[in-house]
Formats: sequence, structure tokens, C-alpha cells
Amino acid sequence: MATTSMNVVIILSFCLWNVQGGIPRFFRGRPRHGMLIPPPLPKGVSTPQEMWFDQQLDHFNDADSKTWKQRYFTNNTFHQTNGPIFLMIGGEGTADPIWMVEGAWITYAQKFNAVCFMLEHRYYGKSHPTKDMSVKNLEYLSSEQALADLANFIQFIKEKYNLHTSKLITFGGSYPGSLSAWFRMKYPHLVDGAVATSAPIYAVLDFKEYLQVVVDSLSTSGTQCVTNIQAATTALTKLLSTMEGLAQSQKMFKLCDRLDTSADKANLYSNLAGNFEGVVQYNKDNRAFEGAIGTNVTIDTLCGIMNDPSKGADPLSRYAAVNDLMLQTYSEKCLDNSYTNMIQDLKNVSWEGSASEGGRQWTYQTCTEFGFFQTSGLNDKQPFGNFFAEDFFTLQCTDIFGENFNEKLIQRGINRTNTNYGGYGIKITKVIFPNGSIDPWHALGVTKDLSPDAVAVYINGTAHCANMYPSLPSDPPSLVQARETIQKYIGQWLS
Amino acid sequence: MATTSMNVVIILSFCLWNVQGGIPRFFRGRPRHGMLIPPPLPKGVSTPQEMWFDQQLDHFNDADSKTWKQRYFTNNTFHQTNGPIFLMIGGEGTADPIWMVEGAWITYAQKFNAVCFMLEHRYYGKSHPTKDMSVKNLEYLSSEQALADLANFIQFIKEKYNLHTSKLITFGGSYPGSLSAWFRMKYPHLVDGAVATSAPIYAVLDFKEYLQVVVDSLSTSGTQCVTNIQAATTALTKLLSTMEGLAQSQKMFKLCDRLDTSADKANLYSNLAGNFEGVVQYNKDNRAFEGAIGTNVTIDTLCGIMNDPSKGADPLSRYAAVNDLMLQTYSEKCLDNSYTNMIQDLKNVSWEGSASEGGRQWTYQTCTEFGFFQTSGLNDKQPFGNFFAEDFFTLQCTDIFGENFNEKLIQRGINRTNTNYGGYGIKITKVIFPNGSIDPWHALGVTKDLSPDAVAVYINGTAHCANMYPSLPSDPPSLVQARETIQKYIGQWLS
Repeated sequence: MATTSMNVVIILSFCLWNVQGGIPRFFRGRPRHGMLIPPPLPKGVSTPQEMWFDQQLDHFNDADSKTWKQRYFTNNTFHQTNGPIFLMIGGEGTADPIWMVEGAWITYAQKFNAVCFMLEHRYYGKSHPTKDMSVKNLEYLSSEQALADLANFIQFIKEKYNLHTSKLITFGGSYPGSLSAWFRMKYPHLVDGAVATSAPIYAVLDFKEYLQVVVDSLSTSGTQCVTNIQAATTALTKLLSTMEGLAQSQKMFKLCDRLDTSADKANLYSNLAGNFEGVVQYNKDNRAFEGAIGTNVTIDTLCGIMNDPSKGADPLSRYAAVNDLMLQTYSEKCLDNSYTNMIQDLKNVSWEGSASEGGRQWTYQTCTEFGFFQTSGLNDKQPFGNFFAEDFFTLQCTDIFGENFNEKLIQRGINRTNTNYGGYGIKITKVIFPNGSIDPWHALGVTKDLSPDAVAVYINGTAHCANMYPSLPSDPPSLVQARETIQKYIGQWLS
Repeated sequence: MATTSMNVVIILSFCLWNVQGGIPRFFRGRPRHGMLIPPPLPKGVSTPQEMWFDQQLDHFNDADSKTWKQRYFTNNTFHQTNGPIFLMIGGEGTADPIWMVEGAWITYAQKFNAVCFMLEHRYYGKSHPTKDMSVKNLEYLSSEQALADLANFIQFIKEKYNLHTSKLITFGGSYPGSLSAWFRMKYPHLVDGAVATSAPIYAVLDFKEYLQVVVDSLSTSGTQCVTNIQAATTALTKLLSTMEGLAQSQKMFKLCDRLDTSADKANLYSNLAGNFEGVVQYNKDNRAFEGAIGTNVTIDTLCGIMNDPSKGADPLSRYAAVNDLMLQTYSEKCLDNSYTNMIQDLKNVSWEGSASEGGRQWTYQTCTEFGFFQTSGLNDKQPFGNFFAEDFFTLQCTDIFGENFNEKLIQRGINRTNTNYGGYGIKITKVIFPNGSIDPWHALGVTKDLSPDAVAVYINGTAHCANMYPSLPSDPPSLVQARETIQKYIGQWLS
């Protein structure tokens, strides 16, 4: 694996992330160094110690008695007798205990005297069900196994902590937001209400609408930004058509390796789009909480560069300037754009590999359950060029996991996911779906009430999972209101 | 396998059975020759041909693309445009197409202009997902796989028969009754209402309450019957304590083989209790529909013998007379009571073996998911002697499927079933739970309304699944009323 890692192939949607630095930068949707930095802990407060639970390996084969150790955290600071259980659902990253003492749900826990638990998702973080991540061993990685983990875990904590009569609310953001809703649907006897933040509820192979929202969000900064990106893409395509231009573009975008193959070219378009995608997805969310290193990079920052002739004489130069800024922000000397490197990294089955923090696992889940491929399939309705289409992503599934993982298998898995959970036709009660208007993921979410008992909270002007972060004085009124609405529903479910 | 088969070890609870003859006689709960005889078909009517559907082998591993052929039947005689879909859920026996033209649900289908489908349960009948029934291959046999089969099948028929906008009601009796309720719970977006007849919804290792209801039901014939059974059991125990008595009992109960082991003795007590259990479970249900050979054997028949000195000088002789009657009804020359024979039969992994009609499969499901062991654990509150306790049944699981299938594994599977479906705490809407007061299975069912939208219909005086059979002029008013109530709810769900 090369020294840097900037490939944006699939942008995931993490909310609860292990944290080492910087603003979001994606490697197959996972920031190499994690997404959130723990904020300074309030004085006298420490995060709880990790705990371990004997979890069933395969919930769908009762003849298999193998178990493994699943990690969880708990905080009973606010708990009072007969108070509820709050359960934060872990997702496609390491479960960070900072969330046991920070975040909106902790505010709710104080309000409702809840005891808090967070269960790390199987295969992520330190929760390793198998000795490695070989394709054979990834057989037990699925949303359904994760939901069954939650059910088993709830029975366990009710017993261990004597919480048999407590009501229970689940929380989750992004993929865990989907799990939160789906858990309420599949195990209604175990959960009294669910907060499903920024939750995609429809699985789809070609998630081209992602770029639609990116375009819409970039347009909030004026129409010129998108026009200039389009011009940059056109210029880049011309450049890549000659040998001389290839060499020039390698220099211009500071690529670590030669642009050899068509896959490398597709990766370049995808990575350059990714510079904008990552910033849009997390635009202006709670930076103080994230403790981002360096300047806030927002939509306005990037569009500012694209529209500023002093940053480059032509749009392509400014496109490169945006890339420079991202490299600089990450202290990276070059852009690791090599398709081969990326695949090699994701083929690593070891728990010690760089993709083990979630890249390989989440890619597996997208290749078997969800798709969610953020393609360029909108064609000329988006300015990044249609060079990273559906087949570029299915190719990756095959290259990483083997011949069996072809488009047919991926599409069948996606169909089954929607059959299983209902997709947009989901039938559910006592669930609230917050989504941000800036967040591209709202395109796969519930943004209108399904019923009086399954409501959408569409938050104008906020990004992915914004409502889950601790509040700030600078929060827009729409966000303040959203947190209050969520609290009101929790109160109703607990009454 | 010996020539006859009369072991009653687990009494299952089939409603929809493949049919070859006679009144119910159980071999590990499955009548060797099936349970229901097809009634004479109405003139001009024939049963539909079997159809086949490419079903997924493992719904819980999207990386596994193997498929197999699942059998189904359809009848569109009553269907009108925009009419609903009625789906009969197959269970732990062969799906018999007679149900496509007979039974209460067909009456409802006429009323509501429904198109009818019946899907055979995986591993039963002709629906073979694997090349044999080795323990390894039974891995894919579970209620959850069956529910996922239904979901996939529904998507298939909606597509194939252009039924995208049709509402859907599921029907099932006994274990398929449970599936009917559980399907509504787990896939609410695919089903608009569920009839869950005689459905056990709580899994339990030691289903000792079964004999409680048997005692209660026998007592409807007067107290003397139970007293005499108790006296017979006491005399039998004395007899079995000597070598001479052993030989005498072999002759008395016409055993095919020697009473060698303690397991054989346990089997004898269990089989003799089974003479009464089977008759109680199906007491006076629709014999005309079943087309039973020979006389109706009812509770009154058996208790009549137990109470009639002309049938034998002492209770033990009359107990043997009851056994004679059952042998005679089945045209069996001797009682195959050998534990070894039984285990050998159930160890046969071939689809051609005598246990392949369901005995091995259902035993597997009880050993991994449900328990439901109809033990003698009520002690002296029942008259059959406490000689077939919990450990006798867990021993069978081990003897048939291997060391791994011990009490711990069975109990864990049962716990998971209740965690998964909620047991008595099931949360569900738009489902109706009919149960008969005579049927021992009502002890594990819903006999009181859970909510205005999840209602019980407790039918006084009827046996297992009575409401599913075609109506008869002789039906008691409680049964007539029950069928009307079910129809009323279906109407509500479809409106």
C-alpha cells in the first residue's frame, strides 16, 4: 500500500467513528484516519472501559454453537430505577467510547434517566467473530446477523443488569440508523421506539442520486461552482486523451503512481469528485466536537477556490488547487490513485491490515446487501463526468472478493434486502427519521412522514447525522428544533 | 425398520397432511401414513398441478447463490381483478393440493374473490433443497429460512402473475399457524393480515402442559377414565419390575420386539399415552373431510373402554384393549416399540427413507428451535406415569443427530426462538389466533386478545385446527361462530 490513501470510491456514511485526525477524507468511503476526533473530555469525566459479551457466531443456524467476544460500553451515570435503556447501535467503524459521555443522546439520557449502552457492530473495531476476514469468514457479516446480535445483547443486559421491566430506545446514525429502524420492525417486542438518523432505507445498485444532492448542495454557493467543475472535467478529459496530457495530469494532481489503466482513470475522476462529496456530506457539522485539525473546509471553501481566478487561470487549475488543499489538509504528499493498490489493500484479510478498520468489511456489505454505489450515472446532470459508472463498482466487488461476486449476485442481494426490510414501502411504528437537506444520503431516506407514528424530520441546511452531535451555540434553528422534536417523541414512547 | 410404527414420542400438530389412510396414529408425532385423506372431489373439480419455483438455498448468506426447486400450487378460480392473494403456508408435512379446492379458506376465497397459493415448506414433501438430510445439509432447515422463502415467493408471484397491487392474507394451522403470525410480524410490508390457527407461539423444552390438557379433555368424559388410566399405569409399573412381568407385558401390549432397555420402557409408557394423545388432539374434527377408515375413535370411545369391565377385568387389561383397538384400526399386527428401531429410522438421511416424510425434519426443528417435547413432567397430575421426561427427549436429539445436539444446544435454540419471535410477549397487529379448547396445543397459544388488532378466538369443544376444515352440518355453534369471526376480520383487513 502506498504512503497515502485518498481514493474515494464508495463514500460511506459513518456517524460514530474512531478518530485520529483531520476533516473527512475517504478511502473507499472510510477516512483512513477515522472521522471524529474525541473532544476534550469535560473535567472529572472519563470514558467507560470496554466490556465483552459472548455472542453467537451464526444466529441462523441453531446447530452451530460457536461464540465470540463482542465489545460494548455502558454508562449508568444518569440512570434511575425504572429508567429506560438507551442503546446506541454500532456501525461500520470502531465504536468510540467518547459517545458514552457526549452527543445528543446523552442529553436525552440525562433528561429521561436512562442507562446507556453501545454495542460495537460485528466485524468492526475490536469485535472480531472470526480469525480473519477471508471471504469464507465474512459469511457471518450481514445486517441481519447484526440485528440478531442486538436482540441477543438486549436479553443479556436485561438479565445481567436486572433491567427486565425497562423500556428501550435504540439510536443510530447512517447505516446504524437503518439498523435502528429495522430492529424496531423485526423485533418490536424488544424495543419501544427508535431514532434512525440519516438512515438509508432503500438498497440500490446505482446510487446516482447521491451526486444529484451534491450538485444541489454545491449550488447553494452559487451556480458558477458547478459550471466551473464541469469545465474542469471537460478539460481533464481532453488532457487524458493524449500521452503528453496523461503525464501532465499526473503532475497536476500530484498522483503517487502513473495513470496506467482505464480503472486508474475512472479512479481519478472518482477521487476528484470525492474531494467535493466528502465535504458536502459533512458540511458544517459540529467541527468543535470533531476537533478537526486545520481550517474548516466547507462547500464555500471549495467553491470559493473553483470561482477564484487567483487560485488558477482556468477551471482545471482550480480543480487541482482544491485537490492540493485536500492533500495539504491531510499532510499527504501525493494522491494514491492506483486502482491496483486500492484493490490490493482491500484484499487483505488480516485484522492488522489498513483496510481492516472497516474498508474491507463495508465493501463486502455493499457488494452483498446494499449496493449504495455512488456512481456518476446522472450523466451530464452532474459536472464530474460519467466515468465511474455502475460497472466500475461491480468490477471492484469481483476484483476484491472473487468471480462469484458479480453483478447478478450483487443485484440479487440488493433485491433481497428490499424484500426483507420493505425499502421505501417500509411498515413501521414508533420511529423517527431525521435527515439533513445537505446530506446526499437523504435521497435514500425517509423524508416525509410514513404515518403519525413513523415521522420524518427533514432538517434544512444540515449535513450527515448533524442532530447526533452535541449542540453548539451556532447551531441553526432547524437543528435545534430537530433535537427537540426527537426528544418529544422519545418522551411519548416512554410514557 | 420393523413392519409397524406406533411410537408416539413427539406428537406434532399437523393440519395439512399428506394422506394415505386411517385416523391419526403418530410416529414421533407424524402419522406414518399421513393424517388426512382427500375427500371425494366435487364433480367436475380437480386439484391443480404442482408448480415449481427457484428458491434461494440460504437467505442469510448473500454470497451463496445456490438455488433449488420449491413446490407450490395455485387456484385462480375465484379470483377477480384487484382481488386479494390468499397464501396457505405449508408446514411439517407434504403439501396436499386437496387444500386448493377444499377447506374454510377456500370458502373465504370465494367470498373475497381471492387468488389462492400454497407454498410447500422447505425440506418437506417434494421440496428438497439438498441432496439428502445429513446433519450438515439440515443447516438450512429453520422457521426463519421458511419465512424468508415466503417473502421471496410473494415477490415472485406478484411479478409472475401481475399481482403488484393485491392485498395479501396468510393462512396456516399448527406450526404453519405460528409461521403465519411470525410472517406478519417480520414482514409487515408483505402481508395485510394473518390467520394463525392452533399456533404455538412459545417455544419450550418441557411441554408438560400438553398432558394437562389431555387430562382435562379426557375428564370431559367423566372422572373415572383418568382414574382407571392411573390404575393401569401403576399396575404396568409393578409388572415391569419383574422378568416375568416384562414378558407378560410384551404379550399384553403385542410388542414386536423385546422390552430390553430403559429407553424401550420409556417408549412404552409414551406410546400408551400416545394412544390417548392423538385421539384427544384430533377429537371429533371433520372426519368426513379426512375420510377416516373405520369407526370414529374419539375420547368417548377410549374412555368407554377404560370404564367398561366387559373390556377387561382390571384397568391394565382395558389399557391393553385400547392399544388393541388402535393396532386394529391401523391394521398393525404388533406395536413397534423399539427405541433402537425408532432412532435408526430417524437417522436415515435419505429422501427415500420412511422418516423422510417429515419425522426426521420435524425432529430436527424441535431439537434446534422449538423443543415442544410432550413430556410426562406433570408428575402425578397426569395418569400416564412420569417415565418420559425431558431427558428422554434430549437423549433422542443426541442419538439421532449427534453429540453436539445436547440439552445446552437445544435450550439455547429455544431461547433464541423466543427472543426472535417474542414468545407470549409477541407484538403484532392484524392477526387472529383461533384455538380449540380440546386441543393440547392451545396451552402454547394465544387464547386471550393481545390487543384489539391481535385477537384470540377460543373455540369451546373443538380440537386441533378444527376451523380450517370444510364446515359440516354437525359443527358445534362455537365452531360456526369462529369461522364467521375469522371471515369478519379478513374482511376488515381487506377493506
